Amino acid sequence: MEQLVGHSLKEIDTPALIVDLAVLERNLTRMQSAADRAGLQVRPHIKAHKTPEIARLQLDTGAIGVTAAKVSEAEVFALCEGVSEIFIANEVVGLAKVLRLLRLSHRVPRLSVAVDSPQCAEPLSEAFHTAGRTLDVMIEIDGGAGRCGVTTDGLLPLADHIAHLPGLKLVGLMAYCPHGYQVHGEAELRRVAAREGEFLAEQAERLQTAGFDVERVSGGSTPTGLHYERGCGLTEIRPGTYCLNDRNQVDLGACAEEDVGAAVLTTVISCPSADRALVDAGAKAMGLAASPISDGYGFVVGTTARLYKLNDEHGYLDVTGLPEHPKVGDKLLIVPPRLCTCVALHDHLWACRDGRLEGIWHIAARGALT
Amino acid sequence: MEQLVGHSLKEIDTPALIVDLAVLERNLTRMQSAADRAGLQVRPHIKAHKTPEIARLQLDTGAIGVTAAKVSEAEVFALCEGVSEIFIANEVVGLAKVLRLLRLSHRVPRLSVAVDSPQCAEPLSEAFHTAGRTLDVMIEIDGGAGRCGVTTDGLLPLADHIAHLPGLKLVGLMAYCPHGYQVHGEAELRRVAAREGEFLAEQAERLQTAGFDVERVSGGSTPTGLHYERGCGLTEIRPGTYCLNDRNQVDLGACAEEDVGAAVLTTVISCPSADRALVDAGAKAMGLAASPISDGYGFVVGTTARLYKLNDEHGYLDVTGLPEHPKVGDKLLIVPPRLCTCVALHDHLWACRDGRLEGIWHIAARGALT
Repeated sequence: MEQLVGHSLKEIDTPALIVDLAVLERNLTRMQSAADRAGLQVRPHIKAHKTPEIARLQLDTGAIGVTAAKVSEAEVFALCEGVSEIFIANEVVGLAKVLRLLRLSHRVPRLSVAVDSPQCAEPLSEAFHTAGRTLDVMIEIDGGAGRCGVTTDGLLPLADHIAHLPGLKLVGLMAYCPHGYQVHGEAELRRVAAREGEFLAEQAERLQTAGFDVERVSGGSTPTGLHYERGCGLTEIRPGTYCLNDRNQVDLGACAEEDVGAAVLTTVISCPSADRALVDAGAKAMGLAASPISDGYGFVVGTTARLYKLNDEHGYLDVTGLPEHPKVGDKLLIVPPRLCTCVALHDHLWACRDGRLEGIWHIAARGALT
Repeated sequence: MEQLVGHSLKEIDTPALIVDLAVLERNLTRMQSAADRAGLQVRPHIKAHKTPEIARLQLDTGAIGVTAAKVSEAEVFALCEGVSEIFIANEVVGLAKVLRLLRLSHRVPRLSVAVDSPQCAEPLSEAFHTAGRTLDVMIEIDGGAGRCGVTTDGLLPLADHIAHLPGLKLVGLMAYCPHGYQVHGEAELRRVAAREGEFLAEQAERLQTAGFDVERVSGGSTPTGLHYERGCGLTEIRPGTYCLNDRNQVDLGACAEEDVGAAVLTTVISCPSADRALVDAGAKAMGLAASPISDGYGFVVGTTARLYKLNDEHGYLDVTGLPEHPKVGDKLLIVPPRLCTCVALHDHLWACRDGRLEGIWHIAARGALT
């Protein structure tokens, strides 16, 4: 982001979420190339950016389609030119959402959704069967997060149950494996990626041996995304944050500081003492880390000033030891702790290259909670 | 909120931020009555709800005007019928914002803003003087938060500086005193409120002795708001969260559970094991606590199920020991850890009374960051 601290950024009012286009493009290419080498499809998770312009770039770079977490996100991306595959990697529960999913299936040539229980699968079956349609479903298996997902013991019974439900077609297996967020550095990420592939390949084989088709085996995340090898057991990965990265990814050793392509532009509004400066970006503009790997705060680009506290509207900077004390009116770029929770607070991304504004992108799926 | 778990809530899709109107009205009346008894004006901080409908109820209950944290928030509330006084209790820095403030001054009969340095005051002076107008300013003094605010040593020199700046009129003194968030229970809150009043009265007297007018002395917060006494030294309070409260306020002993009037309605989407249920409200719908007084998570209304983790889109519930295990499709109300950061993620409040929906209110100043 350092190259971005150019003239025209000074004209953007703050706080504003800035994207470095050069970094974004480099990140997309790097992930796609790594996946191509491993023979994997990239189905990027749009929950990280919620922005059609970025999805478009991901598709241009080679992504097969997009992944969403919510029906409402899928509704937004279904309207984007070029999006013909959407996978909702989450359980869709409740009649209102099931009916929206049915409607969406008319618009999206390849729509698929995760299921992890009969209670989740049956209403989908009833709605799609009644409408004379078929929905592709992926069984979610618990990949170690202790979140959603059937247990390994429950896998075959659930597949059998789905096979007997009209209106549903079982197309594969997915998991969210959190281990990439629990280790540090490339060697460990490679090991974690390999173990994830082995686990999912083994479960896919159990399904196939029992006579079920498994076209897709879906896993992956930003930390592990670059570290799969050919024959790893997956057919696709669903990284999200990799497009722009964040402080957590740097702290995990999953990317370098120069791979971070998003930061909040802020203005210094007060310098009440020699050791402290206050900026106009607080928790409502930066977001907090859901699971602080580091201290949960962002870092300031190109200076040793340290963000040590956030109130709703204020960021507290320790400026001790800086060669020059910031002044009221100075602008600073702060990399957020987590891209996903930061994006969820903003309406626009300010897309810049070499310090010049090239576009103001609508974060169209911000607020898409249902 | 317990009365709200009625039939028609079941028809609201999730996650959705629900307001209990009976609790809201009771909270507004309680704060206004306490302020009336103490001879204080209520200038509620709208950053907590960002919703014109609630501001309208606050004015109907007796509030003198509203407080905002951002120019963009003030722009939204300036359009609300009945809002004739807006105080921006924050430093406004940068030409773009100063010019917006100037424009706003044509629309708002009594507009005032905080200043804590000459660097902050001078551009305001230049813009308003050039336009032939006068802006009311309140000096912000550090009330112990170590945030913005001039030091006590710097108070008189800053007042003197402002007095020589054309286009500005010094009308008073404000502080943000965080001590209400550092103690527990009524007795301590009363002591903290009294000490805040003494501190600000002393500083106001220093200004008056030096010949400056001090019409307004502004302090207060939700925890201390109910605990000021007549002659406390303040002329007004700026509580925000009190309208609906949140888990933090309950944990602080600043309100009872029955005084909480906002919760996120969620749906159980997965019950993968006997001890665990997953709901469709994660960090993007609940918000996280900026400074976790408790564990930083919300609490579930009317059950002992315990929220123990949030991912972006998932809430993890420990359901061990519940008489009846939740089922996929069940709906639960979860009180967020902090109202302010939760509201900042939603577009609408679903206003209910006795389990019936009475209104869908636009959170019009959500995303008002600049």
